[in-house]
Formats: sequence, C-alpha cells, structure tokens
Amino acid sequence: MTQRIDFQTDPSQYRHWRVDYDGEVAHVFMDVDENGGLFEGYQLKLNSYDLGVDIELSDIVQRMRFEHPEVKVAVLRSGKDNVFCAGANIRMLGGAAHSHKVNFCKFTNETRNTFEAAEADSGQKWIAAVKGACAGGGYELALACNYIMLTDDSTSSVALPEVPLLAVLPGTGGLTRVTDKRKVRRDRADVFCSIEEGVKGRKAVDWRLVDEAVPNSKFDAVVAERARQFAAASTKPVGQGIALTPLDRTFAEDGSVSYSTVEVAMDRKARTVTITLNGPDGAAPADMEALQAQGARAWILRAARELDDAILHLRLNEMEAGLWVFRTQGDPEQVLAHEALLLDNADHWLAREILQFWKRVLKRIDVTSRSLVTLVEHGSCYAGVLAELIWAADRSYMMEDEFEGDNRPMATITLSAANFGRYPMGNDLTRLQTRFLAEPETVESLRDRIGDPLEAEEADAAGLVTEILDDIDWEDEIRIVLEERVSFSPDAMTGMEANLRFAGPETMETRIFGRLTAWQNWIFNRPNAVGPDGALQRYGSGVRGDYNLERV
Amino acid sequence: MTQRIDFQTDPSQYRHWRVDYDGEVAHVFMDVDENGGLFEGYQLKLNSYDLGVDIELSDIVQRMRFEHPEVKVAVLRSGKDNVFCAGANIRMLGGAAHSHKVNFCKFTNETRNTFEAAEADSGQKWIAAVKGACAGGGYELALACNYIMLTDDSTSSVALPEVPLLAVLPGTGGLTRVTDKRKVRRDRADVFCSIEEGVKGRKAVDWRLVDEAVPNSKFDAVVAERARQFAAASTKPVGQGIALTPLDRTFAEDGSVSYSTVEVAMDRKARTVTITLNGPDGAAPADMEALQAQGARAWILRAARELDDAILHLRLNEMEAGLWVFRTQGDPEQVLAHEALLLDNADHWLAREILQFWKRVLKRIDVTSRSLVTLVEHGSCYAGVLAELIWAADRSYMMEDEFEGDNRPMATITLSAANFGRYPMGNDLTRLQTRFLAEPETVESLRDRIGDPLEAEEADAAGLVTEILDDIDWEDEIRIVLEERVSFSPDAMTGMEANLRFAGPETMETRIFGRLTAWQNWIFNRPNAVGPDGALQRYGSGVRGDYNLERV
Repeated sequence: MTQRIDFQTDPSQYRHWRVDYDGEVAHVFMDVDENGGLFEGYQLKLNSYDLGVDIELSDIVQRMRFEHPEVKVAVLRSGKDNVFCAGANIRMLGGAAHSHKVNFCKFTNETRNTFEAAEADSGQKWIAAVKGACAGGGYELALACNYIMLTDDSTSSVALPEVPLLAVLPGTGGLTRVTDKRKVRRDRADVFCSIEEGVKGRKAVDWRLVDEAVPNSKFDAVVAERARQFAAASTKPVGQGIALTPLDRTFAEDGSVSYSTVEVAMDRKARTVTITLNGPDGAAPADMEALQAQGARAWILRAARELDDAILHLRLNEMEAGLWVFRTQGDPEQVLAHEALLLDNADHWLAREILQFWKRVLKRIDVTSRSLVTLVEHGSCYAGVLAELIWAADRSYMMEDEFEGDNRPMATITLSAANFGRYPMGNDLTRLQTRFLAEPETVESLRDRIGDPLEAEEADAAGLVTEILDDIDWEDEIRIVLEERVSFSPDAMTGMEANLRFAGPETMETRIFGRLTAWQNWIFNRPNAVGPDGALQRYGSGVRGDYNLERV
Repeated sequence: MTQRIDFQTDPSQYRHWRVDYDGEVAHVFMDVDENGGLFEGYQLKLNSYDLGVDIELSDIVQRMRFEHPEVKVAVLRSGKDNVFCAGANIRMLGGAAHSHKVNFCKFTNETRNTFEAAEADSGQKWIAAVKGACAGGGYELALACNYIMLTDDSTSSVALPEVPLLAVLPGTGGLTRVTDKRKVRRDRADVFCSIEEGVKGRKAVDWRLVDEAVPNSKFDAVVAERARQFAAASTKPVGQGIALTPLDRTFAEDGSVSYSTVEVAMDRKARTVTITLNGPDGAAPADMEALQAQGARAWILRAARELDDAILHLRLNEMEAGLWVFRTQGDPEQVLAHEALLLDNADHWLAREILQFWKRVLKRIDVTSRSLVTLVEHGSCYAGVLAELIWAADRSYMMEDEFEGDNRPMATITLSAANFGRYPMGNDLTRLQTRFLAEPETVESLRDRIGDPLEAEEADAAGLVTEILDDIDWEDEIRIVLEERVSFSPDAMTGMEANLRFAGPETMETRIFGRLTAWQNWIFNRPNAVGPDGALQRYGSGVRGDYNLERV
C-alpha cells in the first residue's frame, strides 16, 4: 500500500511554518524544511512547497479562525533570507502522477481561497510582506492575501515565470487573480507572465501587482504600522477561542474510515465509497455558552471537521473510488435544532465560524472530481445543512412509501432558513438557486416550506430530488445507477461534472476551478510540458524544452 | 503540401445543404453527401458532419443576413428520413490530429454562435424542426437555434451520448447551453448526458430540452404555423439584399495570401505571419444608397470579409505560425469616414449588418489561439474599428517621434464612438472596458478624445498601447519581442492567452470557449478517449473503451 497522506496536523508537528501570536496580529513565517518533503526524490529548496507544506498552511488558517478569533491581521512572511517563496517544487511536479498534480493544485487552490474567505467572512486580513524573490506559486500565495507589500530593493521582485521557464501556467489562481482581483491591464499581465525575472519596486505598484513598495530600511516598521492600521479598522467580533482537538478516527485496511459522526465505507472493487453522516447524538446545546464549552466536541462542528477530513483523504488517497454515495441517518429535528442555535446567534463569532466552515466544506464537495450520488433513505436526517448534500450531488434518489421490514422513520427532506443563503456555492448562488436557475420563483415559494418535513412525493413535486423510488424498484434501480456510473470514463465524468455543476454566474473562484484549472490540466497532459523532452522534465538541466510547434 | 482548407463557398458549390427562400421564411435542409467528406477515410453517414459541412452552413447563415435580409425566420430541418443529424463524424474525429479537432470545434462553435447572433442582432430567428434522431453535435446544432420543435413519435429524440458512448464531452456548446441557455435542472442534465438513447416527446419538453413536442401528423403544419407567427412578431427592418461576390485573393507557395485590402505575409521559418490591413482606397460612399450600390465592393465590408477569410485560413492551414502581427497602412480619416456612414445610419439594415459582421470578425480574433501583436507604425490607420486590433492583441507597440528616412505620416490612434459599444467582446464588455477593468472612469474620460489623432506619448499616457518606442529602439526591441514569443511553448501560450484575454464577467459564449473547450481539449488528450484502447478509437467495434480508472 502506498503512503497515506494525512491532512490532520497541529502546531506541535509543523516542520515548515511557525506562527507568533501577538494579540490582534499574527505573524506567520514560512520556513520550509528542505528535507521535509512528503515524498522521496526532491528537496524543498528556497521555500518551495509540496502538499505537505500546504497541509500545514491550511491548518494554520483554520486554527487561526477557531483558536485565535482575536486575530484581525495575519502577516505572512518568509523565515529565510533573500527568498519569500519559490512556488511549488518543480522536481516534485516533474515526478508526480497527473492525478496527484491535479489534486495537489486543487487543495492549494482551496487553501488560497481560505485567505480571502478569512477576511470576507471573519475580518481576518492577510498581508503578504514580501522580501526577496517571490516567484510562481510564491506570488500566487501573495496574490491570495488581501494586501501585498514588497521590499523595494534590487533583489526583491514578484514573478510568474511558469510560462517561459516551465511551459505550464500559473495555475493556482495566478492568471485569474492577476486579471480579476488585481485587475492588471491585460497587455501588462501578458508581459508580466512572459518574463522570468519578474517586476520590482515602483513598477510593480504601477502595474497593480503589489499594493505598496517600501524601502528595505523601513520595511519592518511599515509592515508593523499597516498591521496596526488594519487591525484598528476592523470591526470583527472577538471572543475566547476554542481548541481544535485531534479527530477521533480509525483507518481500516480496506480503505474504510470510522469517525465519531462519519462512516466511510469503501468498496474498492466497485470503486464506490459510501459516506454516512450520523445526526446529533444528543440535544443541541442550550445556548452559545454551552456550545462554547463543548468546543470541538459539539456535533455540528465535529461533523464538519470529520467530513472535511474524509473528503480530503478520499480525494488524495483513494483516486480510483470514482463514485461517492452520501447517506445520512438520524433525527432531522435534532439537526435543525443544532443548526438553529447557530442561526439564532449568527452575530456570535463561534456561530459564524461554524456556519462558514460548513460553507467551505460544502464547496469542497462541489469541486470534488468524483461522481456524487445522494441517497435519501428512511431514517435519514436531511434537514438544513445536511440537505445541501442532496443538491451538491450530481443526482439524488429518495425512498417513497414504506419499505417492507424497514421500521425506520419515513424519508423526509426539511428545509431551513440556512438553505436560502448561509451556504452559497462558489458561483455565489445557493444550491437551490443554481438548481432552479430557470425558475427563481420556485426558490421563493420554497421558503414557505421551511420546517416542513417533505416526504417523497412532495419533495419530487418540489423538484428537490432527481427521482423517487418505492420498495419494489429501489434496490435494483440504485444498483443500476451506481454500476453504470462507475463504468464511464473517469475523465469524461470529470469534464462533464465540472461543467454541469456550475450553471449561472461565474466568480473568480469558479473561474479558477473551471477555466484556469482545465487549461492547466490540459497543459499537464501535453508533451511540451511533461514529455521526456518537455520543459518540466528538463528544468534545471540548462537545456530548454523541445516543443511541438503546432498551435491548437 | 497538405490540402488547403478553403472557407469560401457559395450555394452553387454546396454538397450538403440546400436553402429554399420563401419570403420571410427560409427553409434550410441538411442533407449531407456521405461521400463528400473533406478528407479521405470516412463516410458522412446519418447527416454527420465534418468541417466541410460546417463551412457550408456558416456560408448559409452569413449569406442569409446579407443577401436575404427579408428573412425573419429560418427553419432548420433534415433532408433525410429518420435522422435529423448524428453530430460530428466519429471516424473523422478518431483520425484527426489534436490540433485539427480543436480548431474544427472552434469553428463549429463560432458558427453555432452566429445562429444566436442572427436573432439577437438582426431578428432572424432560427427554428430547429427535429424529426428523427438528433444526437450529439446534432442536438448541439438544435440547441444553437432559438426554438426547438421535436416530433412526438417513437423514434425521434434528442440526445447527448458523447460521455457514455465516446468518453468525450458534448463540447460544441452542448453542456453549457443545456445548463445556461435551456436552464435544465442540473441533476436532469446529468441524467440526460449519461444516457445514450436520449429523451423523447413530453419528457423532453418537461425537462426544457425542447420547446415543443408535436405529433408527427401535425408536425409540418405546426412548424409552418410557428414560422408564420415568429415572422409576424418580428420588427426587423428589411431591405434589398446585396450579393456576397467571390473574394479577390491569391495564394502564394510560401503561405502568403494577397487580398484586395489585406496582405498576409508568411514567414514559416520564423513561425510568424504579418497581416496588413490597408485603409480605404477611396472616399466613403455619400449615403446608404451609394453603399448599397457598392455592395460587397464597399471597402468596409470587403475588408471585414477578407480579414475573416484570412483568419480562418491561417487557423486551420498554418498551425505552426504561432504569432500573428497586425499592421495597418492608410488614411485614418478615411477609415473614420467609412465607419461614420454606418454609425450615422445604424437603423439601416445594411449598416447594421456590416457593423455586426465586424463585431463577429473581431470576436474571432479574440478567441484565436495564436499570439497577437499589433504594431502601430507611421503611415498606419488605427481609427475606429481598426483601432480594436490594438486591444484585441496580447500586446501593442507604437512608433514614437520621427524615424529617419520615413516620411509617412506620424503614427496615431483615433477613437470613434464605435469603440465604446459597437464591437463588444464575448464577455459583453468593450475591449476598452476589459482593458481598464480596474478603472472604469478611464474609459469614460476617453470619450472626450473621440476623433483626436493621438500620437505615441498621448496614447501611452492614455494606456492605449503596451509600449512606445523611438527610432533607436524600435527595430531591435520588436525583433526581440517577436523572437522571444515564438520560442515559448505553444501550449502554454494557448492556455495563458485564453485566461488573460477575458477578464471580468463571463457569458455563455466565454464559458463555451473557456471552460467547456478547455475541459474538452484535456479529454481529447487523454488515453481514455483517444488512446489505442480509448472510446473514440474503439467506436463501432462493439468493444467498449478500456479506461484508466483514476480520477484526477
């Protein structure tokens, strides 16, 4: 069995980062351990990164929001002299399988997005304080921050040298953030992305590539001053953080995983995994004080963390499990009660963080390159936040009427107010709005059904599920659907799902996961980049890639 | 030398289509000649198509707008029994090079877009009258029409069987039009795109896949009735059409082409082609009557047709010419005068058609997968419509001050009112709006400069060009820029340009050329589709593709 990539970590295990917490300001230092690569065969020189480095970074962003809600500004800087970050490690990229490269990029993209979400959702503003070379994925890291400060000296520059140097794209949001976030004029963006050496100082400001260029001698002082200013301007509600304690989980040999609220049942032969979410094991906390006291033990936070970990584990460690089946079991009223506490206290920092964490977890599902089927069975608890799994899936099937020998409560779907705006997709629409793009009035009329447990016929009439099936048809039909699905070309599924899932408007986020990622994936398959004479393989040899010259 | 694909045709040469003009209604029959394929090695059975079939269709749409402005409704139907259209020919796709496949899809996409543009811009509504199987590219053809009528019988269906049958995507707009034009609920779209046999009758209407299902016995009568109704509802201005006479052009052995207003100078060794547009050779027509009398000889229409043909020729026949350099020479005042006649008479059908044709030609440039550099030299005529070439290019360079021994008039750029809305890009913004996404106020302030010939320093200060260069630097700098550009990986250029050119909002059009096309191109490179055991190669053998099962 190959090495299992673990997405859980904590500060005591970090090899590549350290964080100094100083009241409202956190100082995040990137100081990559050359010899701490996740795999053999490369050294992480010049603060270059692999997935292992990014897993720690993702952990930092997440903990800062839950464990350190007092932080209003995070300053990202390098722990090394002369280099900020050299981007994704080229030798790692050169040696990695296509599937690893693509999933690695997806995870780093998601982590970059959390920088922006931290400010938008929680008022934690990330500043990139750039000293030394900041190239490729390093500049993409800075681009994800909401304020970029660059030392104005002869060696510090920002650069996207992927195209001239490696014949691949700045694919971790770089091209999209240059045009759409920084709004760099397109011909300047074209020049910038074509020069290996990057752009420095005043010109970088004029071209909108950074927000500020500061002389070396004053750099630390001005960075500190900006951090103070941004912190003072923040109106973020703060409170006492809670500890994100280690997850309770067990991995089985056959690929199954058992968490406290989530069961991952692997069927490698069928290339299908069933993910069951179990509803609350107790009543909702009485108030926010009680929730805060429960901390990471609270069902609604625990379930989100466990589901998030399961998704990441399956994506990177079980690539042949092309079909995910979502199930839930539990009491829908309980789910609603746990969610209601958050909705009723949405001004409370912790309620807000948990709601927004669920938003991010559900977004991860949206962009997951696996076929998704949700089964609404008897005994299930698709209410509020868990009902989103029905519309995040490519298809959903619901049990109709009684099933012989099944005495679980009848399958229902219960909408909550949260389904109408708390968990938007990357396209900034709710899953219901995306689903009913042709008929926005349907979404409005569904508001009248909030709180009603809808049985199969009603749910079907309301357009909430793909199909309802009774006892006679359920087993055979579901089996056929699942078997057929896994028989299709995984690549065609990936392309189809990426296109069908995001109807309607586009945002920077959908463009990064859609257009930019698709072009990058295409290039990652082309000999000009990855062939034996391609630029990625020849990198460092002093010999340029040998290119097929045809334009397509 | 391989066969040159010719994009010029006329009804006397059609092998696959016929059009019956009947006043306000045109009947367009697809009746593909099995033995009329553009290349050897396949038969165009069941109204399947290759590029040659699509070139005729494109000609039909274009001629209808110029030669038959009286047409308000075009009814697209099959000339064969039992089949509407089986889509792109699979054997052709299986045998074609990646570069041909991609450029073929781009052209067919552009032709589909002209269906929608014909209604939006000129009030010519396309109806698809579907009898018999309508599958894959056949349904994509129907999707591009603005009203779909389906015979309600046991054999007529609409289908997108690409994914289950061929392991590729419905990539000619299919997935995007299903979700964003037809606004089919995403789980139904998912089901629809997974079933080979498609959807029939009432269900096709319920699922929004077609607008109307009509019993076979009444089909022709109802189609005729709808055509009459739509024609009666149209407020399209009509007039006497003009003939699109054959282009005057000469192809040289070295790949150069000479038109009456356009010079295409090929340098195959440098992989660079220089496209020079020559300004008007005479005064603008005095009025619309005079323009109408000139017809296809009018400079402003002739130049658009010649440029359009040159673009298509270079895209499909000269794939290694990865860099296009645009030049103009002529009198900018004359260009403005010719354009002004159209702007002053924008209610006249012919003025409108010519303006909208230029819009489409410029859009073709935007989505052309070649690096584009525009040179603003002394003696050039970048005014109004021709100035768009500066902002359609990835970069633009302008001559500053006098050049020794060069007595041509000083290089200038002159804005016209048309630059502020007559030629929008696919993202529905003008090229100036896209360029100045960060500073919309700049676009507004440029309105004050309409009609002023701006010399280099002013143009540079206004942000209209990438760089200005004087006599000392021009030659070397331009040489270095061009040489560097062609040295990059063509694939990386394609990906970079596709991302940098379309900042800002997305539309169905940008999504088709961006997200959908990129995923399709990726799949067109994956062994699951195109490998020796892939689905495209095995199609028709009775044996399914042998898939690598990893999800990426």
